Amino acid sequence: MNPEEFRQWGYAMIDWLADYSARVESLPVLSQSAPGDLRKALPIQAPEKGEDFSDIFADIDRLIMPGITHWQSPHFFAYFPANTSGPSILGELLAAGLGVQGMLWATSPACTELETHMLDWLADLSALPDAFKSTGAGGGVLLDSASSATLCALLAAREKATQGKTNQSGLTQEPHLEHEDSASVMRTPCLIAYTSDQAHSSVLKAVRIAGIGEAQLRIIPTDSRHRMDLNALKSAIMHDLQVGHLPFFCTATIGTTSSMAVDPIQEIAALCLDHRIWLHVDAAMAGSAALCPEYRHHFAGLDKAGSYSFNPHKWLLTNFDCNCFYVSDRKALTSALSILPEYLRTPSSESGAVIDYRDWQIPLGRRFRALKLWFVLRSYGAEKLREYLRGHMQMATHFSSLVKASDDFIQMAPVEFSLVCFRHRAGDAFNEKLLNTLNQNGKLYLSHTRLDGYFTLRLSIGAAHTGFEHINAAWAAIQHASQSLAR
Amino acid sequence: MNPEEFRQWGYAMIDWLADYSARVESLPVLSQSAPGDLRKALPIQAPEKGEDFSDIFADIDRLIMPGITHWQSPHFFAYFPANTSGPSILGELLAAGLGVQGMLWATSPACTELETHMLDWLADLSALPDAFKSTGAGGGVLLDSASSATLCALLAAREKATQGKTNQSGLTQEPHLEHEDSASVMRTPCLIAYTSDQAHSSVLKAVRIAGIGEAQLRIIPTDSRHRMDLNALKSAIMHDLQVGHLPFFCTATIGTTSSMAVDPIQEIAALCLDHRIWLHVDAAMAGSAALCPEYRHHFAGLDKAGSYSFNPHKWLLTNFDCNCFYVSDRKALTSALSILPEYLRTPSSESGAVIDYRDWQIPLGRRFRALKLWFVLRSYGAEKLREYLRGHMQMATHFSSLVKASDDFIQMAPVEFSLVCFRHRAGDAFNEKLLNTLNQNGKLYLSHTRLDGYFTLRLSIGAAHTGFEHINAAWAAIQHASQSLAR
Repeated sequence: MNPEEFRQWGYAMIDWLADYSARVESLPVLSQSAPGDLRKALPIQAPEKGEDFSDIFADIDRLIMPGITHWQSPHFFAYFPANTSGPSILGELLAAGLGVQGMLWATSPACTELETHMLDWLADLSALPDAFKSTGAGGGVLLDSASSATLCALLAAREKATQGKTNQSGLTQEPHLEHEDSASVMRTPCLIAYTSDQAHSSVLKAVRIAGIGEAQLRIIPTDSRHRMDLNALKSAIMHDLQVGHLPFFCTATIGTTSSMAVDPIQEIAALCLDHRIWLHVDAAMAGSAALCPEYRHHFAGLDKAGSYSFNPHKWLLTNFDCNCFYVSDRKALTSALSILPEYLRTPSSESGAVIDYRDWQIPLGRRFRALKLWFVLRSYGAEKLREYLRGHMQMATHFSSLVKASDDFIQMAPVEFSLVCFRHRAGDAFNEKLLNTLNQNGKLYLSHTRLDGYFTLRLSIGAAHTGFEHINAAWAAIQHASQSLAR
Repeated sequence: MNPEEFRQWGYAMIDWLADYSARVESLPVLSQSAPGDLRKALPIQAPEKGEDFSDIFADIDRLIMPGITHWQSPHFFAYFPANTSGPSILGELLAAGLGVQGMLWATSPACTELETHMLDWLADLSALPDAFKSTGAGGGVLLDSASSATLCALLAAREKATQGKTNQSGLTQEPHLEHEDSASVMRTPCLIAYTSDQAHSSVLKAVRIAGIGEAQLRIIPTDSRHRMDLNALKSAIMHDLQVGHLPFFCTATIGTTSSMAVDPIQEIAALCLDHRIWLHVDAAMAGSAALCPEYRHHFAGLDKAGSYSFNPHKWLLTNFDCNCFYVSDRKALTSALSILPEYLRTPSSESGAVIDYRDWQIPLGRRFRALKLWFVLRSYGAEKLREYLRGHMQMATHFSSLVKASDDFIQMAPVEFSLVCFRHRAGDAFNEKLLNTLNQNGKLYLSHTRLDGYFTLRLSIGAAHTGFEHINAAWAAIQHASQSLAR
């Protein structure tokens, strides 16, 4: 593809996407395709001869579109938003076209410096503690996802707690022998992690990956509002200390996946600080709300946390992937993750004057992710972003009032941000049927969870173009489907 | 940004990129900026009010370009290529615009099915064993990087070796106590991993992350051609078995980072099979060469490997990130990485008829990476891709002949693919000076390594538009700079 062909098909793709953003509202939200539909339509072998790009382009509509679940539809209310925007798409386009590798400062200084700067901008916009800024002892980095952020935090905490010995010698804990009497053997204390029963599955995944083991993750129960029970956490830590374990890591959540519950960060942070436990705060979805001062009370206590993460790729008009991961002590993170082979040595790195972000993450390579964030923050400005976030939160309040006014439906959790959890009074089987009916219909897409044992529907608001009219349409569809099912 | 503005600025960005690909050749390859240059030029705070996109756009040239090291320059010979192409850029653009999340089949069936299909296409194009295809017991997945592939392979191997007990109970090995006499304590055998002294740093990083510990990674020496010494590997395994350890994982390399050396895969694979050791084969850079039948002898033995990975984002015209990771037993991988919370249950997943790629990787979320691969494979066709790879390998042979014919330079390793390792006879200090002079000059960009103790220059060929004229220009620049320095 020469530059002129690239221009021609580039324009065509831009046109296609401009049209897509206009028509996505009219498409069935959840893909109606059956397993294997796309694969059956594709040739078994890659072509030997190159094909005309016009043929490839036509196949986007013919083959790909039927298999798309439209995350950008204003009728998308499932899981969490993964919203995008024009400026973000153009930032990703520029990153793909420049094709730079930001593993080291020297391999594209702008990639590293714009990233550090955007993380500082977002720290200020969110009123995060100074320790998370590059001007202090900590700093931020862009990762692919909050799962990776949790894993990186856990590894930093593990190495800090064991003075780097786990990287060197491996985990030597013996969780099943702690009560035996075998004084002849020197024991390394067993590392213990804590989180709530509402935490994201990535916490358990990280504990497994790092070799800590599920048995060493204490799942702390939650209260009636699905917040981590502080007394239960305290008791668990005390018990572990008594038997000679080493509590080292706790993940608390601002905005849990199931119900957007907010753990009592301030109290948990104080407790963790007392016991030298690394507190990681996961605000993957809700973190964007910190741009609005009236939501910042949820974030109090972060100044005592070891790390914090949130996803502009969920709710800040920046396309996936774009996770902001902050640590208050960057040395703890890089000590855990840095390896310097000869072939990666550069004069700038040796000078110590620069950041090499490869030491802040699991993989070595990295894209120029900061471009899209820069485009988004400048195009909208803080004012418009706050307006947009508040809009979604007002829509959630509105939907909640519809649920509460209804005789048939019950709201299952307080609305802290832009998620409403609710269910029909008719029981689990009915609600599951209702969910599948609504989703198969294609007019909207909801997902579910289980709260207090009940099958619960989730209406998660956050697509870029969702407005009150879409909320009202969703409520009408839900009522209509439930009335049909009830008959 | 409304659809019409998106169209306007989308066209402008496409134009900018079309021009960039034409002018990149004339830009200094290595960024000439100093630490802090970009940050000093950026406002300390994000803007409160949105800015015109024309202002943002102008800042790409004004602020970003001076800080770019041009990986797409035909004069880029450092590290490894990270080449891209028109079709790949358009695939990434489409993925960003559709903005789908491919964590589950249901969250966009096309994202999962196109990915499976592209991995099968590439398996056939590379003549990989049937076990790595989705039609067998294994299959492939797109990850961000070869580092992540190595980590996933290691975790699958760890869980297979310990029957899933490490995920449950954590690592219980006690590496430092193996010779002590304490029969009263039941010992779990110590897990041991193997790799060569030329393996990528990500192997050590994975061993650390997974809690195995550096002390349990046996670094096997290499022969005069930098290939893993089979006898040394055999001895190491035997010794570990004798002392009661459990050898469980070995990473061999096709195309090492330093010198593109090829480990004796066939022999290593047979040895690993005998001892039930999971063999992971890392062909991050060189894997693309398997498209050409005349290079496939390097890949013999893969039928006995547990996993294999290579990066189309290095040498197959597909922009970062795009790593192909294959396993011969997908159950081993998903058993290690799967966690199923209520909020991720879907009817299609429960039916077992679909792949949910979230269980094949570290993070949960995933982009629609397969689109760019589909565009590339169809636009070029297998024929053109082979032609392009062979061109680079011919250029490497040509450069090697120039080095060999010179009195001043010595070639430091055989040319297996498209990398030439060489040094000036004048010693380490001279070569380091030569490297810095060449790179600061901006006319080309080389990186270095250490081979047999010597500071060695690496000319890695693989940028999309590198031709013989650029190789000759590089040689002329190297000769010129070395003659100037020698005076």
